[in-house]
Amino acid sequence: MHFASDNAGPVHPRVMAALAAANEGYALAYGAEPAMADLTARIREIFEAPEATVHLVAIGTAANALLLATLAQPWQTVFCSDVAHIHEDECGAPEFFTGGSKLTLVPSTDGKMTPEALRATIGAEESRGVHGPQRGPVSITNVTERGTLYALDEIAALCAVARDFGLPVHLDGARFANALVALNCSPADLTWRAGVDALSFGGTKNGLMAVEAAILFDPARAQEFEYRRKRGAQLFSKHRYLSAQMGAYLQDALWLALARDANAAASRLRDGLAAIPGVTLLADYRANMTFAAWPRAAHRQLLEAGASYYLWDGTLEDGPEDAPLTARLVCDWSADPADTDRFLGLLRDAMALGNVTKL
Amino acid sequence: MHFASDNAGPVHPRVMAALAAANEGYALAYGAEPAMADLTARIREIFEAPEATVHLVAIGTAANALLLATLAQPWQTVFCSDVAHIHEDECGAPEFFTGGSKLTLVPSTDGKMTPEALRATIGAEESRGVHGPQRGPVSITNVTERGTLYALDEIAALCAVARDFGLPVHLDGARFANALVALNCSPADLTWRAGVDALSFGGTKNGLMAVEAAILFDPARAQEFEYRRKRGAQLFSKHRYLSAQMGAYLQDALWLALARDANAAASRLRDGLAAIPGVTLLADYRANMTFAAWPRAAHRQLLEAGASYYLWDGTLEDGPEDAPLTARLVCDWSADPADTDRFLGLLRDAMALGNVTKL
Amino acid sequence: MHFASDNAGPVHPRVMAALAAANEGYALAYGAEPAMADLTARIREIFEAPEATVHLVAIGTAANALLLATLAQPWQTVFCSDVAHIHEDECGAPEFFTGGSKLTLVPSTDGKMTPEALRATIGAEESRGVHGPQRGPVSITNVTERGTLYALDEIAALCAVARDFGLPVHLDGARFANALVALNCSPADLTWRAGVDALSFGGTKNGLMAVEAAILFDPARAQEFEYRRKRGAQLFSKHRYLSAQMGAYLQDALWLALARDANAAASRLRDGLAAIPGVTLLADYRANMTFAAWPRAAHRQLLEAGASYYLWDGTLEDGPEDAPLTARLVCDWSADPADTDRFLGLLRDAMALGNVTKL
Amino acid sequence: MHFASDNAGPVHPRVMAALAAANEGYALAYGAEPAMADLTARIREIFEAPEATVHLVAIGTAANALLLATLAQPWQTVFCSDVAHIHEDECGAPEFFTGGSKLTLVPSTDGKMTPEALRATIGAEESRGVHGPQRGPVSITNVTERGTLYALDEIAALCAVARDFGLPVHLDGARFANALVALNCSPADLTWRAGVDALSFGGTKNGLMAVEAAILFDPARAQEFEYRRKRGAQLFSKHRYLSAQMGAYLQDALWLALARDANAAASRLRDGLAAIPGVTLLADYRANMTFAAWPRAAHRQLLEAGASYYLWDGTLEDGPEDAPLTARLVCDWSADPADTDRFLGLLRDAMALGNVTKL
Repeated sequence: MHFASDNAGPVHPRVMAALAAANEGYALAYGAEPAMADLTARIREIFEAPEATVHLVAIGTAANALLLATLAQPWQTVFCSDVAHIHEDECGAPEFFTGGSKLTLVPSTDGKMTPEALRATIGAEESRGVHGPQRGPVSITNVTERGTLYALDEIAALCAVARDFGLPVHLDGARFANALVALNCSPADLTWRAGVDALSFGGTKNGLMAVEAAILFDPARAQEFEYRRKRGAQLFSKHRYLSAQMGAYLQDALWLALARDANAAASRLRDGLAAIPGVTLLADYRANMTFAAWPRAAHRQLLEAGASYYLWDGTLEDGPEDAPLTARLVCDWSADPADTDRFLGLLRDAMALGNVTKL
Repeated sequence: MHFASDNAGPVHPRVMAALAAANEGYALAYGAEPAMADLTARIREIFEAPEATVHLVAIGTAANALLLATLAQPWQTVFCSDVAHIHEDECGAPEFFTGGSKLTLVPSTDGKMTPEALRATIGAEESRGVHGPQRGPVSITNVTERGTLYALDEIAALCAVARDFGLPVHLDGARFANALVALNCSPADLTWRAGVDALSFGGTKNGLMAVEAAILFDPARAQEFEYRRKRGAQLFSKHRYLSAQMGAYLQDALWLALARDANAAASRLRDGLAAIPGVTLLADYRANMTFAAWPRAAHRQLLEAGASYYLWDGTLEDGPEDAPLTARLVCDWSADPADTDRFLGLLRDAMALGNVTKL
Repeated sequence: MHFASDNAGPVHPRVMAALAAANEGYALAYGAEPAMADLTARIREIFEAPEATVHLVAIGTAANALLLATLAQPWQTVFCSDVAHIHEDECGAPEFFTGGSKLTLVPSTDGKMTPEALRATIGAEESRGVHGPQRGPVSITNVTERGTLYALDEIAALCAVARDFGLPVHLDGARFANALVALNCSPADLTWRAGVDALSFGGTKNGLMAVEAAILFDPARAQEFEYRRKRGAQLFSKHRYLSAQMGAYLQDALWLALARDANAAASRLRDGLAAIPGVTLLADYRANMTFAAWPRAAHRQLLEAGASYYLWDGTLEDGPEDAPLTARLVCDWSADPADTDRFLGLLRDAMALGNVTKL
Repeated sequence: MHFASDNAGPVHPRVMAALAAANEGYALAYGAEPAMADLTARIREIFEAPEATVHLVAIGTAANALLLATLAQPWQTVFCSDVAHIHEDECGAPEFFTGGSKLTLVPSTDGKMTPEALRATIGAEESRGVHGPQRGPVSITNVTERGTLYALDEIAALCAVARDFGLPVHLDGARFANALVALNCSPADLTWRAGVDALSFGGTKNGLMAVEAAILFDPARAQEFEYRRKRGAQLFSKHRYLSAQMGAYLQDALWLALARDANAAASRLRDGLAAIPGVTLLADYRANMTFAAWPRAAHRQLLEAGASYYLWDGTLEDGPEDAPLTARLVCDWSADPADTDRFLGLLRDAMALGNVTKL
């Protein structure tokens, strides 16, 4: 009953096999292995972006922070939602890698900014000449940190706002594959065709060991990115093990298959949750992350039974037993339907019991 | 005939097996997996340092830069040799991670600083009150970037100089295992007992895929290191694959065996080189890296025959055919004696040919 | 009719005289002039803080940013109001000098944070272990950026919240003298006795040419401040001209007299404004800055007549003539009552005219 | 007998008068005062550079560090002499303002780099692809930190080397006026016509209170400089007192007259020193700074008699009385010939005495 995070799951066997296959003899270091050139060609094909440059790193925070540092000047501010991963969960990595840029927070609902809110927030900055922070890139997350999705036209509308102000757009795609299969669109449509300039293309949460691709759709700043990656201690010597993972990920569309599996697992979970009286889904979810609320007492029973997930807005201790408490539930590609069903069964039982509902 | 670098070689099969074994089901992320606690205990035991803290990262530059950032203030300067990896090969990562510390270069011979040179260099700084950079940590590399070794008493003498000035000591041990087996001493003797405060304990060059351990012998700054690691985008979510590698590395002293193999391969190579008239070894080498010089024409023949190594002080093109040119030759744990012998045979033939010696 | 800013006014003649007096022959540079030692003693006396250290800089942003850099770690976040000068008007100087700390904004009303809002905001940070930004110093501004004042017990209540979390407190006192005379309390009461650790003690807005004193009530971090000041290019060689200004400022309580004059001028202005039907004062003001609203058409007449002040929430162009628009009106020590009366007269006339009230 | 530094002297009376004149009524802040526009026009005229942009700051370190930050990327290294002020005397300000650029030191003699040494040093960097620091701007100081001068053709030769590598050139002109009058050339010849891109145009050491002009001969990066200046806490609110100083400095060529006075004073001093047996001038000096050596015992007598200057290569205490010790002797515009003669007389007497020569 593992719903803590999609980074808690295992590496897919085909990725492990690719690592084993890459482990033959000697190879040129630092990305000079032939597999990296193949990979770049493959990603350009997938994204219909023959000029794009591809740079592998091991950690999503690195992809985000290095791309933002490449897009932003230190005296600029990055516009992102008030629940953005780059704001809440990277211990200030964007501020560190950019040399001290600010993050200006855009109000969000269920993790999503509206174009209006983005426009108002950008408009309110840079009204003080040289005295205030200057406007910098817009960063969007899809799948959002709250499990929701921006539809194609929503992404395009946000990008249009950025373009009106002449600002570049970064897309945090830690769960890009999950968004893509949920939206059933092309990688190009979800990125550069909508107006995205730079993409953190996640792999680690979707079956890889530790690889993310930073993709620049405009190659003009690629060399700068290379310097920043090396200086940021993100350039791997035994780089072949990164390109091997990413190669296997793209081979025969494994990445899409894994995302479909994860999304399907989450869908099964949500169907089950929706059928339990007293359980509330907090928003409309279509990818692999779900937020749902039910009484504290039922959480207690599930967690004691070994279920693993985050309590989002409180603790087991602080509050009445019958008060609703939100769970963040994430499914990865390896989620076991039987496990999910067992979880749902336990929750159903807990909710049915007098000790929950009567409290 | 692969002598380009010990980061060009493969991962040891037992490490690959450990990765496969770690790839079972779900695990807590970010170092909370039980294997990490075991690993810390094991390293404390190996180093006879029950208080030491252990922090895994994937890249040597990250270990170095994060440790230096933890030891140095931005207004201080780090003392290191003029050929230190942190100065020459990290694209300014130490300057970046420290927030702009300087590096003050100590003259070296064959990659080694003398205590006298270190003392003179430290003494010459901080003579200008608040105006000049302030004295900061000393960073030593062992095995040095020039393949030589500091003996135990040499490390201790450098540390004693640092201590006289009240400065902490960092040891860049990208090839720590190679130094240790060559010196035939204990890990404690080569580090904290000699006066080292922080160690970059290398694994990647010695059979791992991508793991280095940053070790702080004094735990006082461990929490700061943790913040810096996260903020520096070096904290892995699927951390279990780092601890698995490092666990296998230490298991049954694999790390020492691999270093012995690499050193032995280098020793076989050096014996062969020494026996070829006209080939000069540049210094006394006992670890896995060797610098040797022979005429350009013979380099040409070797490289055309497929040998792989760095020309250190010139190019094939710029200079007379009979002028000596230095090769850097690095052996890793997987070096094949037959390969080495073939290399030596080719060099012997090239040196014997009129077209080399007569030029 | 100059109400644009208290930094638009002239230097007080006694300060000019002190500069002239300091301009005799040679003097030791960089703060070693005897006047600086006298000044430190004087400030310690005034603040009843015999251990405090005093460091002169020329610009308020420098005092704020250097003090925050001394109090905060790069991975921490500074808590300040959402209209704080350090957030809105320093082009990211705090982020730059701290090495990339965040600023976490506390909701404010009329420029003031409540203890409850501060507690809630601090409480909401650092809930994510190493992943989120860590809690850092609290920064309070008094007189606030909206012209209001924190009373003694309000400052103490905010400091108590900071203390509950173990966080240091910085006070941005660009208009410290104005606050002090308005509150009619002692410098000690308004700072360290209330719980303030570090003070930006303003002078430039109150009759000096360009001097602010950074005061650390706990000397433990004074040496660090010195390094940061030099490295931040804020240590003056001809430092005697800074200590001369600050010396004159404190001599015979000139600083308090100037602040009283500025506050009195603002009081006269407010009394006049309050007497004009249709003019609204936005809050309760007691120092030298006032926000007041009246119809756009009357603004037009005043500005065309040569009055100088900032329109705070709109422009002359965008909106109906009879819609209220807010002016920020700042009085400095040199404000001329006749000038103020002329301004009030013009406004009274404009408001009385049909073309305003009938629109 | 004041030879400690040209920053120990007073402000010229015409500059004080200009400050008094500027102290009338209200003025727009932050450089919007009309005098600043006049000043820019005047500097463009003087430098025959109609496109140049002019930015005032108060401290030489600020001018240097901000200009270098504008010219260099964080992953680049600045080439400067091994005795450059930016390396030795700014507590790492260039590293701080650039975001962690390196400084690569070029060997110098008497403070001067040769084009050959500069070419060799630049050539030796950037040989390691992305791994090493990248080549960045060249920084030259004239008058050098050792009191010597680069002639026009020497500056041009250094700039030509920079141009060969495509690198911009910064000139640290803390004593620019002293160099100019000594070389008897035009400001344009000594800067952009020789190949200089950015100039720190000093005023503080030559009779101002605290003003330096950062001049960009190519305006392309002027806006970036403006952001960096504000963010670096170097933008003065009461900016009129900076433009007033610089205005008076340029008015009727006061700056050149003051530099001529300072250089003449130094010339008188050198003539006197050269005539004293046993006193050695260390190089050929033509500006206002001189290094000369004589026995320790004579230093003792001078210093005890109240002379003020720096001992450059030792202390009064450590060494034999008859061993030579070097003095750095700096003359400012206000140097008094009688004072110089008294100094020379004392030295002559000390050298003639048995207690010196016999030791």
